[in-house]
Amino acid sequence: MISFIKKIKRSSTLNFQALSQKIFAVIEKNHIKDLQSLKNFLKIPSISTDPQYKYAIDEAAYFLKEYFEELGFDAEILVTKGHPVVYARLGQDPNKPTVLCYGHYDVQPADPLSLWISDPFDPQIRDGYLYARGASDDKGQIFCHLHAVKTLLTISKELPVNLIFLIEGEEEIGSPHLKEFLKEHQEKLSAQYLLVSDTPMYAPKMPSLCYGLRGLLYVELQVRSTAIDLHSGQQGGIVQNPILGLAYILSQLKNKDHEIQIPGFYRDVRPLSSEEKRMIDGIPFDDQEYSRLLGAKKLVGEKQYSANMRRWFRPTLDCNGIISGYTGPGSKTIIPAMATAKLSMRLIPYQDPMVIFNALQDYLFKICPEGLDISLSLHTASKPLLISRDSKGIKAAEKALKMVFGINPILQGEGGSIPILNAFKSILGLDPILMGFNLPDDAIHAPNERFGIQQYRDGIHSTALFFHYIGLDL
Amino acid sequence: MISFIKKIKRSSTLNFQALSQKIFAVIEKNHIKDLQSLKNFLKIPSISTDPQYKYAIDEAAYFLKEYFEELGFDAEILVTKGHPVVYARLGQDPNKPTVLCYGHYDVQPADPLSLWISDPFDPQIRDGYLYARGASDDKGQIFCHLHAVKTLLTISKELPVNLIFLIEGEEEIGSPHLKEFLKEHQEKLSAQYLLVSDTPMYAPKMPSLCYGLRGLLYVELQVRSTAIDLHSGQQGGIVQNPILGLAYILSQLKNKDHEIQIPGFYRDVRPLSSEEKRMIDGIPFDDQEYSRLLGAKKLVGEKQYSANMRRWFRPTLDCNGIISGYTGPGSKTIIPAMATAKLSMRLIPYQDPMVIFNALQDYLFKICPEGLDISLSLHTASKPLLISRDSKGIKAAEKALKMVFGINPILQGEGGSIPILNAFKSILGLDPILMGFNLPDDAIHAPNERFGIQQYRDGIHSTALFFHYIGLDL
Repeated sequence: MISFIKKIKRSSTLNFQALSQKIFAVIEKNHIKDLQSLKNFLKIPSISTDPQYKYAIDEAAYFLKEYFEELGFDAEILVTKGHPVVYARLGQDPNKPTVLCYGHYDVQPADPLSLWISDPFDPQIRDGYLYARGASDDKGQIFCHLHAVKTLLTISKELPVNLIFLIEGEEEIGSPHLKEFLKEHQEKLSAQYLLVSDTPMYAPKMPSLCYGLRGLLYVELQVRSTAIDLHSGQQGGIVQNPILGLAYILSQLKNKDHEIQIPGFYRDVRPLSSEEKRMIDGIPFDDQEYSRLLGAKKLVGEKQYSANMRRWFRPTLDCNGIISGYTGPGSKTIIPAMATAKLSMRLIPYQDPMVIFNALQDYLFKICPEGLDISLSLHTASKPLLISRDSKGIKAAEKALKMVFGINPILQGEGGSIPILNAFKSILGLDPILMGFNLPDDAIHAPNERFGIQQYRDGIHSTALFFHYIGLDL
Repeated sequence: MISFIKKIKRSSTLNFQALSQKIFAVIEKNHIKDLQSLKNFLKIPSISTDPQYKYAIDEAAYFLKEYFEELGFDAEILVTKGHPVVYARLGQDPNKPTVLCYGHYDVQPADPLSLWISDPFDPQIRDGYLYARGASDDKGQIFCHLHAVKTLLTISKELPVNLIFLIEGEEEIGSPHLKEFLKEHQEKLSAQYLLVSDTPMYAPKMPSLCYGLRGLLYVELQVRSTAIDLHSGQQGGIVQNPILGLAYILSQLKNKDHEIQIPGFYRDVRPLSSEEKRMIDGIPFDDQEYSRLLGAKKLVGEKQYSANMRRWFRPTLDCNGIISGYTGPGSKTIIPAMATAKLSMRLIPYQDPMVIFNALQDYLFKICPEGLDISLSLHTASKPLLISRDSKGIKAAEKALKMVFGINPILQGEGGSIPILNAFKSILGLDPILMGFNLPDDAIHAPNERFGIQQYRDGIHSTALFFHYIGLDL
């Protein structure tokens, strides 16, 4: 199936220093125009979770297809049972390795809109940052790849690699149809490397590569006590209050030491080797500085683990949203009929989300207070991912990042999840190279999401060099 | 100040049976037209808590003023620092007692709108009920008084009493400006009796008079953990989740036996005499039937008290609304920055809402989990009310209700609060006669609020007779 057999060490004598300077100069020259293309892309409100933005999903896919074609790719929009996939291909030289670049054109919802300084879908540049929903996650990073290709094509008509781009529209809702898509289009996606830029750098001037991603279990919990909202005076004292009932349930999910109380939750957790622990805890991290960055009073969590350990290699449980009763201005004296919460767990190897889902369900029914009906529904269940730290792809990325940033990248975990990457592994046999360029305070998934202009340019630069190092077939 | 000195027992020889039949016949005759007036009044969305309905507040006040004038009252709209008061007067005969009728033309918000079968401000009749926001609380009950006057004026040009109507527009937000109004207009409000129809009957065909109203403490609680919403993957495990933090706080407000945990909360609670306990527990109540009525799985609460005791003569704590994070369709993987809850307590004699507020504040700061900033604001603080069970006014109301319904009314408590009644007592020296006509399942403060057409007519009938019994000066 994998078609390239013979490789020629064409570029082994390449002067990478000189190439890097050439790339830099082209990026500089094309900057204004390329940034405008990205801004145009960011204007499209391609929110995948909300059906009213379906028109924008289609618009974003079409925009990408056209842009790929402008760059010389063969591009097509491929349907799925959900949002479409944009597929683009450039070069089919059997003597060159093929890199599959995966990203997503869909974005998170933008609310609460009132907290945005500028409109989330009217990209604005302020203080060296490009502000817009999707600026970092993931439209800006897709454009690091696209503009790396554009840059290399300006320098030479021949690229060092064959390229396949697969840009999907359902990443933010857990890629429900991409697994089937990968199975169906296995042939078209045949590659030796998988490049993904959808993770952050560790810190400014500290590039990093991720070798672990947490899994995700995302559920919705609803409790109901009565058929309708009641008058809190006339009926207060005789019915279960669904908010207080739900609050009780939520209070039973973690103890004071932040340990998750679902029976069996930690059973399948992978113990870290002492070498790996040393590596993680060797990465500089200042709790106070970081809590300032987040605007937090202090960092909290399991005390026996460092903050980096907690956010990369420990499972967590969070409540992502809650609503019940009257939430407008002033007061309304009701006992609501029902209450709803969104609940998510980040999982680490070798926890299985469906095993946890069942354990959660059992536990919830056990602790549910009297007078309440409880129901649980599943939004997302994706397994955690662990990647080899010394593959050829990782080595090429390390070299590219070192050339651009002047230091060796950090090997880190990532607390977030890219649920579909497990399927790339199982179906296409590819481990991702997770080389991302945004920064931890870029407010992805939050109001005022942004992408540093310099980060974006360094992203283009690093990706262009990465394609050349891969071309060397190290 | 109180101006009537001499009373003539004019009506002592009146045949009340015959009068009652006459009243009934007039109600029957005027029904269609009078109901249409009420419907027109209900069309006005006079929601007092939401500033965007200010225009409707003014419209409702103006509507009432015009309607009073049509009936022959001298009516005026009197300004306050908040919404205006409608004041109307009919008769100033020093030989007749004066009855002050108090009600409110403002209504609760109508949301969630999606649960209304017909538009809350487009009154509809279905199965013998008039459906609209305010149908029972309190526009429909105001019209029981108004149409009682209209009915009596059809029978005779001379009324048995002098009447003052005071209809305010801020009852649903705790009457913040009425106390000052009462002080300012003491002279104009001079009366011997205070009639209020803003409480329900005990059950269909079981009229009742309330002699106790619970007080109300209504607060809003906000917790904040970070400056902005965070990515639940990238930062999950290192910050306090504000929803889980708030849930923990809420879970500490009551124990499993539904006892409120705020230190000192029960200290000033009035113990009931065994005679009063017997009276309350002698009122028929079927827990199973009542929980079916509410659509509840079961009734819950302090086990050592009966349901009526719990909703009338025990203090309670309820959460009336909660919101945080993403609450739209699908999933959004954030840790919200903050969470907000509305919290209310119903209080009984001799609890003081401000003492409880301070105790609550101390307790909240004590139990607040690490990493959270907490803030508490006050919406309403009103004292509980206890009324003599054997005043002349109560006796007159008992007679009127017995004539219309054929049985002696129940003397009951009321779980709700009419915060301003304490001021009527302290400023005007008047204890209210709480004679209400809606039913417990009329969904006041909830979607599909309604008022039974027969209840409305019985309300007119009872009020008209009440004015005559009062005129007798029993």
